Amino acid sequence: MNRQITLVARPVGYPKESDFKLVETSIPTPEDGQVLVKTIYLSVDPYMRGRMNQRRSYAPNVQIDEVMVGGVIAQIVESKHPDFQVRDIVNASIGWQEYGIAPGEGLRKIDPSIAPISTGAGILGMPGLTAYFGLLQVGKLQDGETVFVSGAAGAVGSVVGQIAKIKGCRVVGSAGSDEKIAYIVDELGFDDAFNYKNVTDYPAKLAELYPDGIDVYFDNVGGRITDAVFPNLRVKGRVVICGQISQYNLENPETGPRFLWHLITQRARIEGFLVSDFSDRHAEALVQMAEWLKQGKLKYRETIAEGGIENAPTAFISMLKGGNIGKQLVKIAELD
Amino acid sequence: MNRQITLVARPVGYPKESDFKLVETSIPTPEDGQVLVKTIYLSVDPYMRGRMNQRRSYAPNVQIDEVMVGGVIAQIVESKHPDFQVRDIVNASIGWQEYGIAPGEGLRKIDPSIAPISTGAGILGMPGLTAYFGLLQVGKLQDGETVFVSGAAGAVGSVVGQIAKIKGCRVVGSAGSDEKIAYIVDELGFDDAFNYKNVTDYPAKLAELYPDGIDVYFDNVGGRITDAVFPNLRVKGRVVICGQISQYNLENPETGPRFLWHLITQRARIEGFLVSDFSDRHAEALVQMAEWLKQGKLKYRETIAEGGIENAPTAFISMLKGGNIGKQLVKIAELD
Repeated sequence: MNRQITLVARPVGYPKESDFKLVETSIPTPEDGQVLVKTIYLSVDPYMRGRMNQRRSYAPNVQIDEVMVGGVIAQIVESKHPDFQVRDIVNASIGWQEYGIAPGEGLRKIDPSIAPISTGAGILGMPGLTAYFGLLQVGKLQDGETVFVSGAAGAVGSVVGQIAKIKGCRVVGSAGSDEKIAYIVDELGFDDAFNYKNVTDYPAKLAELYPDGIDVYFDNVGGRITDAVFPNLRVKGRVVICGQISQYNLENPETGPRFLWHLITQRARIEGFLVSDFSDRHAEALVQMAEWLKQGKLKYRETIAEGGIENAPTAFISMLKGGNIGKQLVKIAELD
Repeated sequence: MNRQITLVARPVGYPKESDFKLVETSIPTPEDGQVLVKTIYLSVDPYMRGRMNQRRSYAPNVQIDEVMVGGVIAQIVESKHPDFQVRDIVNASIGWQEYGIAPGEGLRKIDPSIAPISTGAGILGMPGLTAYFGLLQVGKLQDGETVFVSGAAGAVGSVVGQIAKIKGCRVVGSAGSDEKIAYIVDELGFDDAFNYKNVTDYPAKLAELYPDGIDVYFDNVGGRITDAVFPNLRVKGRVVICGQISQYNLENPETGPRFLWHLITQRARIEGFLVSDFSDRHAEALVQMAEWLKQGKLKYRETIAEGGIENAPTAFISMLKGGNIGKQLVKIAELD
């Protein structure tokens, strides 16, 4: 028997448990070229909130009564593709379910000898690649620049700050708890950090932290903290828009101060991106990331929810509210 | 005797006549390497409003009792630089005055055989170069794309639309009077245009005009019309921030809807620039612009205020309120 989480109502504001439903169904059978996989870890990510809406996005929305979309770390149970054997571990996009069918073509194998397989959904997976390409390719980070990261203790932000340190930059992060602040400064080596819940005047705080301005701002959060960056940007500054998690769950969209004139005075750039824009270079980036990990230059933490697939909605909602440090996963099953 | 316009009060909202003062002083004497020039046309431009404030900008603010900054088309009265002769015509940055001293180094000569010398402050000057580099270098316009221009009947916007047409693009402009709309469509060849004062639902209007979205938005205006672009951007769309004239004269800064999440879904970019960022390429661009002008591919109109230097504040305020079609100039003196 297979168990899935479907979307049964489009959330207004933060998702609620009742927007999801646990559905039992039969385990499907792979066709030629496909594999059947068993989910070991389910990844819950901020982008999924956007897929629950009806508005235009870069990918199709989840329809009512469809299985929630998402990536998993999974083990192959049955293979009808020559490149995959039973027990191989892969990163698959089968959504929130215990078993699923994936095409073998383009499926990424996870090598368990490099790092725990859960990292395939974190620092050696989509969030790590997002940090890497967002900072280096979109942000065009140069050695020695000043970097600010919002959502700095999350799966992406925590990697952004560490790559910036590898590049010899000064990096400050914002996050939403003192525990997160201690983590990114003491364990990850950020130069400084602040708990945005304990600061009221963000522009003044950033002016104090960056007397000569910010070269690259990596934005996971949006809202008031992002507003505060524009008056503190350096000439030719870059703002990388990776996420806007503060805005995803608002019942009534916020307004904010207009800031585009700062882009003229500073000759600055704001740019959004998706990690999939760089898919032809993911493999090379993962080699680099794995090397940094092995050298101890990159560290990571995971927040793993137990309780199986039925706990995915709770874990997802907790992540949206900042309950995680590092990558948020849901443990679904043990490896065979 | 020399007459100058100085700033005597920092404007709150739109500048008033009483923020300026007409001052009489003696005509200065050039030193070695300098020239004394007599202003023929004074250029009044939106950027000058920013120089009247105290807040951070890309250039020093005008101080109280200082002469207002700005460019002029002028004739040389006395030369202590070997490259310039009396009666030569130049583009100089001497501010709002009848006579001024300029260094010969870097001074740009105007060739009166190419076009009327007033174009040296318009289509063959700073505004034309702003359109050229903003659209082609910052906007990276590709042949056949869709382009939207706000402030489309102004000195910059009118050139942006025409260059887009030269590049085989579909271009629509917005402006603030039916006369301006007729001008840009009937005379300049824009594909379509609308009077923003007669439209209430800008997002719907743009959706109707661009069923497949906007590739490049060239923004001279900011505010509500710019807000409406983001939901209508195409994937990999570019927003070029040249000016934000709707925002310069607000007593209380506006707020607006937050739109950065659109940049993620569309993998889009917003970038501000100054024409001075491209100063090493101004000469080559002017050759191209002069050629297009000669071929009849570029047209222009000027709004020339008479009445001498004492009329500069009135002309400036009128331009800020949209009273001009094409480049706004003030006629100061006749050529010798």
